[in-house]
Amino acid sequence: MSAPLRIAVAGLGTVGAGTVGLLRDNAELLAVRAGRPLELVAVSARDRGRERGIDLSSVAWYDDAVVMAGEAPVDVVVELIGGPDGPAKAVCEAAIAAGRDVVTANKALLAHHGNELARLAEERGVVLDYEAAVAGGIPIVKALREGLAANRIERIYGILNGTSNYILSTMRETGRPFDEVLATAQELGYAEADPGMDVDGIDAAHKLAILSSLAFGSAVDFAGVYIEGVRHVSPLDIEYAEELGYRIKLLGSARITEDGLEQRVHPCMVAKTAPIATVEGVLNAVVARGHVVTDTVYEGPGAGAGPTASAVVADLIDIARGRRGATFGVPAAELASLPAAPMERHRGAYYLRLQVRDQPGVMADITACFRDEQVSIGAMIQRGQSRTEAVPVVLTTHDCQEAAMRRTLAAIVKVDTVMETPRMIRIEPL
Amino acid sequence: MSAPLRIAVAGLGTVGAGTVGLLRDNAELLAVRAGRPLELVAVSARDRGRERGIDLSSVAWYDDAVVMAGEAPVDVVVELIGGPDGPAKAVCEAAIAAGRDVVTANKALLAHHGNELARLAEERGVVLDYEAAVAGGIPIVKALREGLAANRIERIYGILNGTSNYILSTMRETGRPFDEVLATAQELGYAEADPGMDVDGIDAAHKLAILSSLAFGSAVDFAGVYIEGVRHVSPLDIEYAEELGYRIKLLGSARITEDGLEQRVHPCMVAKTAPIATVEGVLNAVVARGHVVTDTVYEGPGAGAGPTASAVVADLIDIARGRRGATFGVPAAELASLPAAPMERHRGAYYLRLQVRDQPGVMADITACFRDEQVSIGAMIQRGQSRTEAVPVVLTTHDCQEAAMRRTLAAIVKVDTVMETPRMIRIEPL
Repeated sequence: MSAPLRIAVAGLGTVGAGTVGLLRDNAELLAVRAGRPLELVAVSARDRGRERGIDLSSVAWYDDAVVMAGEAPVDVVVELIGGPDGPAKAVCEAAIAAGRDVVTANKALLAHHGNELARLAEERGVVLDYEAAVAGGIPIVKALREGLAANRIERIYGILNGTSNYILSTMRETGRPFDEVLATAQELGYAEADPGMDVDGIDAAHKLAILSSLAFGSAVDFAGVYIEGVRHVSPLDIEYAEELGYRIKLLGSARITEDGLEQRVHPCMVAKTAPIATVEGVLNAVVARGHVVTDTVYEGPGAGAGPTASAVVADLIDIARGRRGATFGVPAAELASLPAAPMERHRGAYYLRLQVRDQPGVMADITACFRDEQVSIGAMIQRGQSRTEAVPVVLTTHDCQEAAMRRTLAAIVKVDTVMETPRMIRIEPL
Repeated sequence: MSAPLRIAVAGLGTVGAGTVGLLRDNAELLAVRAGRPLELVAVSARDRGRERGIDLSSVAWYDDAVVMAGEAPVDVVVELIGGPDGPAKAVCEAAIAAGRDVVTANKALLAHHGNELARLAEERGVVLDYEAAVAGGIPIVKALREGLAANRIERIYGILNGTSNYILSTMRETGRPFDEVLATAQELGYAEADPGMDVDGIDAAHKLAILSSLAFGSAVDFAGVYIEGVRHVSPLDIEYAEELGYRIKLLGSARITEDGLEQRVHPCMVAKTAPIATVEGVLNAVVARGHVVTDTVYEGPGAGAGPTASAVVADLIDIARGRRGATFGVPAAELASLPAAPMERHRGAYYLRLQVRDQPGVMADITACFRDEQVSIGAMIQRGQSRTEAVPVVLTTHDCQEAAMRRTLAAIVKVDTVMETPRMIRIEPL
């Protein structure tokens, strides 16, 4: 058996401790599979005294992760600190500069600095691997970079944030509103105290930007992702979705259009019969459409210590086995710089819910707004009747351009019988 | 860019022609991803004159694929002839002996001779890759060998034969019997003229034997797979399954038990809510349960020229990129020789349908058979009443041992009011 792969781990939170635990507990099997032992040599974290349930007496401790990355006698540095900049970035840069391979679970870092880090890694001849950064334990990075490499990818989409999916699933099952379900998710540890990254779609956008690069051979373009979160989805919309044959999911979706690279994260109505519609709770799922393979679907746990450690250690095994390769599947210099397709140019069908005063002429005023923008109405539901309260009117459109839909909405808002901001959710044919 | 990867293709049926077409049509992108051109240098097939819709004027033609495998100036030989022995095996052996890497889509060959070929390949220092052999375009071999390599796999199961799944799906949707639906499948090209490999479970068993080896690090043991096909599934059983909350699927399923390696292919009743229950038509799906990642699901087209070529060319890209590795994830010499767990020792719940003469004492006679074997009845449905015809009685059991269930069945058959051979379908908790 060859020499051990010597590993340094920066960051010993849940995932870091899980990774160290997995390397220890499964050492024998990992060595057989990797063809050499995976040996933890050095660790670094903020607080040396903290109890983590792992014995670190036999490994070198570094107070400064950047120093460790540059100086520890290791082959690979595992970055599990997190965050788009700061120490996480410095650790990766130091490791690369010192000629060490890097494994990271850091989607924010890659979304913001992936192109630059990929270039640095290639210049230095080291590997930058990040299976854990997207969809946790699902080996989707490997699937795109290798398993589907024979295909032109036509489209990629998925449920990329387990917290939002848990919230939407639970809202549907219980009929409870967003705020309440978020609070429960926080109690259960499915949502952070500051839930914005998850429920506002940013985390999903980080992951989508990475998937896009892998899928389309384009430079990572996080700034080009259109982002809308799930805070505005109401139990009423979920009910209407059900009635119309849809489920509401927060999807990340990317494809190449004639306008460039379209990357979108927003709540979608998807047909109940779509494979992704039945993915519930904290699970993630990704669908990739290749030009010869057609659709393949990947589903599993998108977060958590175990699944994330599984992906981190898979990368380590790959490195131990000798796989070397470009960070995003093609050399950094050959990543295409595609313009971001403006969301206004997106074409699709739309669901709208208006709260209107129930009086003569309302429907004529509203439908005129659609007619003026040449937006064709598909279905309409109006059941409630009330002289005193606002009643909901639900409409779906045929395919139209987002810009026309937005102009329609702007006109509707001005109709004086429309009582609240209309709710708009895009309908996604899958 | 490095030197081209020179490729020979043996067998130019649908998949062979699809592979050649993909290498041609997508050459530029493949070269960027692989880091070097993938160059088709030689081909061999039975009939040189046949029109395949591909221009072969620039490649060397060999009448004898074995000669090509040994003598053509190539780096990789792609075996797409098929069959467990004969020319397919000879081509692989000749290629390995000549120091060429081998890519094959041949599940039968690997199920029967995988251990031996893996050993030969390792001795000679060449790669034997076979992503296309299991679940077509789904990169499940890569997922198990690499993506989930950090895990002890606890269980693997899936829908591994698209033909059977199409037949069961269509039977459920239309209520038509097996023979009729098979005939339709044959007309549509979803089933072969000789459908035995598919509908009798053999093809699924080939794939399961390969998956087991990858999952458990054990030698391929096709002979150890318990196999039962779908011919005996009737529309009546499908209806009762629906009523009981199940779908009937032909599953391949493997795990390590205290008796050894349990590998089973047979129709199963799975809960309608299980992810795999909604996989319909010719699709395949595989679920792998890892000890840290938990369940990940992989779904997609399991056959066809495009998906299969996608997997074949993915292997070629891997080889071009320089990935080398043991055929079944660990060195052939270290593959464990596990005893086959006898099916009689399997424990599970069962569905039984009896056709009985509707007369006093019938139920007492039947339930006595269960009692005598200590098999506990879960649910019972008996609705029909007829003085002249046999009426169905459906029973489900709680978990019991297969041996006890078989003894119960043997006793039931002897009850003189039982008119036909009882139908038994295993209930699979997923």
